[in-house]
Amino acid sequence: MNQIDYARLDRDDPLAHKREIFELPNDTIYFDGNSLGALPKIVAQTVNETTREQWGNDLIKSWNQHDWVNLPTIVGAKIAHLIGAQSNEVICCDSISVNLFKVICAAINAVGSEKRRVILSTRDNFPTDLYMVQGVESFLGQQRCELKLVDEAELVDAVDERTVAVLATEVNFRTGRRLDLQQLSQAAHAQGALMIADLAHSAGVMPIQLSQWQVDYAVGCTYKYLNAGPGAPAFVYVSQRHHAKLKQPLQGWFGHLNPFAFEPEYQSAKGIRQMLVGTPPVISMQAVNAALECFNDVSLAQVRAKSMQLTHTFQQSLAAQDWSSDFELISPSHAEQRGSQLSYAHPNAYEICQALIERGVIADFRAPNYIRFGFAPLYNQFQEVERAIAILADIMSTEAYRDPRWQTRSTVT
Amino acid sequence: MNQIDYARLDRDDPLAHKREIFELPNDTIYFDGNSLGALPKIVAQTVNETTREQWGNDLIKSWNQHDWVNLPTIVGAKIAHLIGAQSNEVICCDSISVNLFKVICAAINAVGSEKRRVILSTRDNFPTDLYMVQGVESFLGQQRCELKLVDEAELVDAVDERTVAVLATEVNFRTGRRLDLQQLSQAAHAQGALMIADLAHSAGVMPIQLSQWQVDYAVGCTYKYLNAGPGAPAFVYVSQRHHAKLKQPLQGWFGHLNPFAFEPEYQSAKGIRQMLVGTPPVISMQAVNAALECFNDVSLAQVRAKSMQLTHTFQQSLAAQDWSSDFELISPSHAEQRGSQLSYAHPNAYEICQALIERGVIADFRAPNYIRFGFAPLYNQFQEVERAIAILADIMSTEAYRDPRWQTRSTVT
Repeated sequence: MNQIDYARLDRDDPLAHKREIFELPNDTIYFDGNSLGALPKIVAQTVNETTREQWGNDLIKSWNQHDWVNLPTIVGAKIAHLIGAQSNEVICCDSISVNLFKVICAAINAVGSEKRRVILSTRDNFPTDLYMVQGVESFLGQQRCELKLVDEAELVDAVDERTVAVLATEVNFRTGRRLDLQQLSQAAHAQGALMIADLAHSAGVMPIQLSQWQVDYAVGCTYKYLNAGPGAPAFVYVSQRHHAKLKQPLQGWFGHLNPFAFEPEYQSAKGIRQMLVGTPPVISMQAVNAALECFNDVSLAQVRAKSMQLTHTFQQSLAAQDWSSDFELISPSHAEQRGSQLSYAHPNAYEICQALIERGVIADFRAPNYIRFGFAPLYNQFQEVERAIAILADIMSTEAYRDPRWQTRSTVT
Repeated sequence: MNQIDYARLDRDDPLAHKREIFELPNDTIYFDGNSLGALPKIVAQTVNETTREQWGNDLIKSWNQHDWVNLPTIVGAKIAHLIGAQSNEVICCDSISVNLFKVICAAINAVGSEKRRVILSTRDNFPTDLYMVQGVESFLGQQRCELKLVDEAELVDAVDERTVAVLATEVNFRTGRRLDLQQLSQAAHAQGALMIADLAHSAGVMPIQLSQWQVDYAVGCTYKYLNAGPGAPAFVYVSQRHHAKLKQPLQGWFGHLNPFAFEPEYQSAKGIRQMLVGTPPVISMQAVNAALECFNDVSLAQVRAKSMQLTHTFQQSLAAQDWSSDFELISPSHAEQRGSQLSYAHPNAYEICQALIERGVIADFRAPNYIRFGFAPLYNQFQEVERAIAILADIMSTEAYRDPRWQTRSTVT
């Protein structure tokens, strides 16, 4: 018995009008915006125009005429608005991984010593976060950098006088569990350590307050809930408190105080600009700039409210099925304790995921046996939840997932 | 008296048919392809299609369906073909600056020691090359990395037993002077050092032979003579000789042996893939892939021959003018000793450059008083040289460059 009135939820949804600004394929229920956000119509137009008009027609003059040279800070300021930061604390550039390297090194430069050399993180943090620390570790040597991993629940208590920084992702990519960045930041500061936040699964969907939470450094991507396209440039945040003494080793010409003077000695730009390295990827940067317009008339409180309602509705709807006991919810059971996703363990998770995709419900699989459903409040609808659960119910009752095609796994994302 | 038959040179040009594959604005003579290459028509189509079809319609499935996941190596193999490298020695990723950091660190890891710690480069190398070494230097400390700068002419003799690597740009961005990479490579190896080449102003226009010249590492960009768009992803080359022991600190998840296993310990991919860091910028990467098709039916010998003929023709044509003595050629006077550009010093270089741009001749200015003319053999024509010199002659005879608007300099590129 299912008493949820999905149609009514959609009618009452204050964000319902946003769906039409996206290009979404017919007959597809897209629950993978946590991996790759959908295409906003304005981005398709902008990419085409940037390519044909700005590059093709105005050529090199566009660096001035279309202000290409300032795109990283223009876009950064717009992202700042979505993560509770000041306009001059965020810049758009490079990938999350490269930006992690900058902020890990900046933290070591700021407070590191032979005694204080531990980067403290969680065992199931997204791997690239751990790999980048391991890279710094092997490069600098363990007398300057040492990665220490603990379980999420132990993180707060594990901070001590040897900690350079706590490195934590707000929303766990596998389980969707939300960590309390403010609490972590306080725990770090109480021990003289710094706080580095990874906002990959948060930016654009969680009501982040970096300034208020006194987070020191943060990184995030724009291709998930910010809908800027596959592999779009990432962003990096550095609290104003650290601008004066900021120092990171990726000293490229775009981070120079005066790049077009072409001086042989590096002198860092003031403030956040020194996080820039090479020439900015202009077309992708304009895509991010356009994608951010999707947030013009919405508040993140609305986005978060709908996100919680979507995960709650999906969870309730699945729980009402007679096969639901085979699906073990590995996300926290309360919506406020998780990001905008639900992950379920099932022995046949991979095959079920393939069967869903074949029927137009795009979710994704994560080893060893999880199905992840991501919910993007700007375009997902409650009636999509209803249809997805009906399709899943059909797959489970007919055992359609037992298909020899899916005995060999080939999915890469 | 000017006896050059420009029309005939164009008629005899075996690359003349390539111009029509580019979108070039009317009434513009574009001599700045050494800064930002022109837009190939196929790139505009590809960018639009990648955005609308691959991202917009196929969404996350494109990582497999459109082989997004292998784009860095697919594109790298095509670039390898243009720089005399093996297919598995080149990968497309990040910016030149970030790639410089990887190869500088890789060289230090390969042969560095307390005694051997010098990165040897030239005073007027492109600044980002020097800045990146300075970043490594300040991060690792001078007991592991020390930048030493000499004049171009002293480079070969300056290599000694303290040298980790020679870091040289084949074509000087200001003067256009070509360095002999093979000779530098031999000089480095004779002292147990390694050779790092920057191909920013070479790739796609110079007949580079990295394997034959035994260059150890190289970086280069795709937005100049490879025409892949503003800030398009760069490339990095590592000789197969170094693959087995390759180690660089930017250890991101895309450089992992098995990225989608999401293991907490970094284990590097085999070969060139370990130079990858974060998620590849797909739309830009497809742009590079398409742009490389412009080279399908041409040889770099043809490209180089036309490039030399273009610079020679321009030089001769300018030298025949009665005001030519005010223009001091700072590029080498023989075409084979320079890349595909000519640089002239003139006391009013900035203003003359602005007057040229206003009249549709796009060249660029470099401090303190140089005008650079870049020649792209795939689309520039000999009759453009004729028209540009005529326009320049008019500017000089009327002193049109003495315009109060150009008293304040605002050009950034």
